Amino acid sequence: MSSSALPGFRDFYPDELARRAHIFRAWRAVARRYAFVEYDGPPLEPLDLYTKKSGDEIVGQLYNFVDKGAREVALRPEMTPTFARMVGARASALRKPVRWFSIPQLFRYERAQRGRLREHYQLNVDIVGEASEVADAELLAVALDVMRELGLTAQDVRARVSDRRLLNGILLTLGVSDAQVPAVYGVVDKCARQPRELSAEKLAKAGIAPELVERILAIASGITFEAVRAEFGEAPAAAEHVARFARYLAHLDALGVGEWVVLDLSIVRGLAYYTGIVFELFDAKGELRAICGGGRYDTLLHSLGGVDLPALGFGMGDVVLGELLNDRGLFPPAGDDAIDFQLVAGNGAGQHSYAEALGLVTTLRRAGFSVAHGLNAERYLGQATRNQVDAAKKAGVSAAIYYREDGTAEAISLLGKMNGALTHTMDAAAALAGEAGVMMGLRDWLQQQRDTARH
Amino acid sequence: MSSSALPGFRDFYPDELARRAHIFRAWRAVARRYAFVEYDGPPLEPLDLYTKKSGDEIVGQLYNFVDKGAREVALRPEMTPTFARMVGARASALRKPVRWFSIPQLFRYERAQRGRLREHYQLNVDIVGEASEVADAELLAVALDVMRELGLTAQDVRARVSDRRLLNGILLTLGVSDAQVPAVYGVVDKCARQPRELSAEKLAKAGIAPELVERILAIASGITFEAVRAEFGEAPAAAEHVARFARYLAHLDALGVGEWVVLDLSIVRGLAYYTGIVFELFDAKGELRAICGGGRYDTLLHSLGGVDLPALGFGMGDVVLGELLNDRGLFPPAGDDAIDFQLVAGNGAGQHSYAEALGLVTTLRRAGFSVAHGLNAERYLGQATRNQVDAAKKAGVSAAIYYREDGTAEAISLLGKMNGALTHTMDAAAALAGEAGVMMGLRDWLQQQRDTARH
Repeated sequence: MSSSALPGFRDFYPDELARRAHIFRAWRAVARRYAFVEYDGPPLEPLDLYTKKSGDEIVGQLYNFVDKGAREVALRPEMTPTFARMVGARASALRKPVRWFSIPQLFRYERAQRGRLREHYQLNVDIVGEASEVADAELLAVALDVMRELGLTAQDVRARVSDRRLLNGILLTLGVSDAQVPAVYGVVDKCARQPRELSAEKLAKAGIAPELVERILAIASGITFEAVRAEFGEAPAAAEHVARFARYLAHLDALGVGEWVVLDLSIVRGLAYYTGIVFELFDAKGELRAICGGGRYDTLLHSLGGVDLPALGFGMGDVVLGELLNDRGLFPPAGDDAIDFQLVAGNGAGQHSYAEALGLVTTLRRAGFSVAHGLNAERYLGQATRNQVDAAKKAGVSAAIYYREDGTAEAISLLGKMNGALTHTMDAAAALAGEAGVMMGLRDWLQQQRDTARH
Repeated sequence: MSSSALPGFRDFYPDELARRAHIFRAWRAVARRYAFVEYDGPPLEPLDLYTKKSGDEIVGQLYNFVDKGAREVALRPEMTPTFARMVGARASALRKPVRWFSIPQLFRYERAQRGRLREHYQLNVDIVGEASEVADAELLAVALDVMRELGLTAQDVRARVSDRRLLNGILLTLGVSDAQVPAVYGVVDKCARQPRELSAEKLAKAGIAPELVERILAIASGITFEAVRAEFGEAPAAAEHVARFARYLAHLDALGVGEWVVLDLSIVRGLAYYTGIVFELFDAKGELRAICGGGRYDTLLHSLGGVDLPALGFGMGDVVLGELLNDRGLFPPAGDDAIDFQLVAGNGAGQHSYAEALGLVTTLRRAGFSVAHGLNAERYLGQATRNQVDAAKKAGVSAAIYYREDGTAEAISLLGKMNGALTHTMDAAAALAGEAGVMMGLRDWLQQQRDTARH
């Protein structure tokens, strides 16, 4: 039997699944607070859904094949084409703005690099049908509130924002010609990742005058919005875009996420795709790849043959985010959603039937507790209480529960040291009957044990 | 642009996703109460993971292909091989019994039949490391408690249970020879789906004497456990199996699910796979395919080259279950998890800034409410309050919220008739500051509106 998954694919053992679920829970909680509703599409799609958007070059990076019905198909490498198809098919019936999110698993065949995955999960959040920059602010606020929800702060994560139209206005004001703009974008996009001399050389080659080269490189390597406003706020080619960006920043403040945000005009992202404000989230130490990226893509839905509606969205993967949470110790400790109770045989086990013991398990489960038992009558009746309690403690269960000789049932906390363990005693018949007061008392006691153990 | 998914694949628009999520929620809630922990594996696996278990014939039903690294791979058609691989890889480190569950999406290339899907989701619940029939009872109780959790009753769903060993003991007692048993299994398995004459003919062909043929067909078409116990309870070849099955039924009673269960010795399931107690869940009317199937497969892990541990499990798909819930009207009404609030501009909108309005949205979201707003400052300030409230009501939002001229903020319920709408008034500054008492009052009011609307 193959003893491992395919290279680049992850097995999620329960501890790893719990971390994935922690991220998914935060994604869903925040998306819901922002009034987004969840959708999903198939993980396998017609190949042309992707080649129409990205050209044939993308095929080299896909898990694509011909199915038994002679259809060219591919595992989805991204969600946007599926989203565009689904919105397009019901565009007139859908209430605008559309606010949808999804958590697809995505697949890319990447050349094997150490630790590089070929699948990941990605939160996709999109808005369709609203051109105002309020929507841009709302979108970024969702991404940043996910960071906050997971325990990260503005000291841990930066949102670098830019606006294609603003950069264009600045460049035109500085004297760059329309024809030179695309080449300048290419340099700006790479200037953080290549030597300054190389960037300068490329700009010169594009026909940019020497003094302008220095100005462009200075702007690309960091200029505050205050400086942009002071210099370009009145310039005819830039004024409108400066004003819009100022409103965008004010909305971000109103939405409570302004302190996470910095202007970074070197954030360009896909030229053929984005049309307005774009952003990327990075860890503040700059040690990891981008956590999240997105922006406005007003022409994409139309160019895919769908509806002509303004749109914007982001994707946030689970891998880099997981690395950051792990580095910062922000994943909940393993066992934080531990099993509540394990049934053990107390000294009074001889005084009640095994059926009665299973009945207590059933009552507790119907009251909403998670309850384990040994799945074996002989071991239940034959093994010493002490050993059963020890085993439950090793399994990470929060409390043992058992009948006592005197007709009571007792829960014993396994969260503290065994010697100082706290117990909670109930009338056995009332516990077996699931009396509401008894169940509530037990719930409160268990919560108190957990709260105490945490501090 | 392709305007539809591949044949046999589903798009999950928000309404459909909500129904899927309703099923997943029930699956996870019940699995957790029974102390099972979630795991997951890759949707793409090496092809030989499946051919080793099921032989090469299965390839005709798979989405299989050769990846760019020349590996033979397949989309997973079932979860058990992945489960066996994962448990096998860590068998010695895992605490027994292993109680794991997963909710994989599974893929089969079936010849196109109307309405037949090529993917579905399936709850997989497995126990490894316990041979006692208590584990069998626990497993079936999980499946049946899922039914109960979803609002189904013992009048809606039947669990048909059998035991290969018990049937074998009965057949040997009746005089069937070891060599004839496999042929008899084959007939018993099909007897509900083929004419009685054909079954009788096949049994005769297998060398079964005429009077025995009638006995076998009578047993296969329905015999109570009481009758089995009366006739075979003391028979040497059957006694042990009758006694075990009696304990199994007693455990099911103790676990509170006895009333859902009937003996049905015609439930055979995969001969090469199951070794003990097996079960299937059906709708009581018999209109749908099986909702769930599973049982004990003590030799499978070992035969796959893994560990030699007793094991049992079931799979429950989302499709038949969804049809049943739909037929019975048991899906929550659309909009049951509606957006809490929509910000609208009250008559006092001129008296506060747009930033303040977004601030109120932010405060409500941080208090845990889901809040929508129009994403457009001009529309917020320019559109009549009445129109904004109407639009919010049409969007299915539970309540509108707005500032009033007198310095209060007001929530207006959209759940009842507009004329009789109830309002909830708060001090605007206290609401904006998110004062705990104000937020709690708002939460109680909203809950009350929903409770009233439901009755």
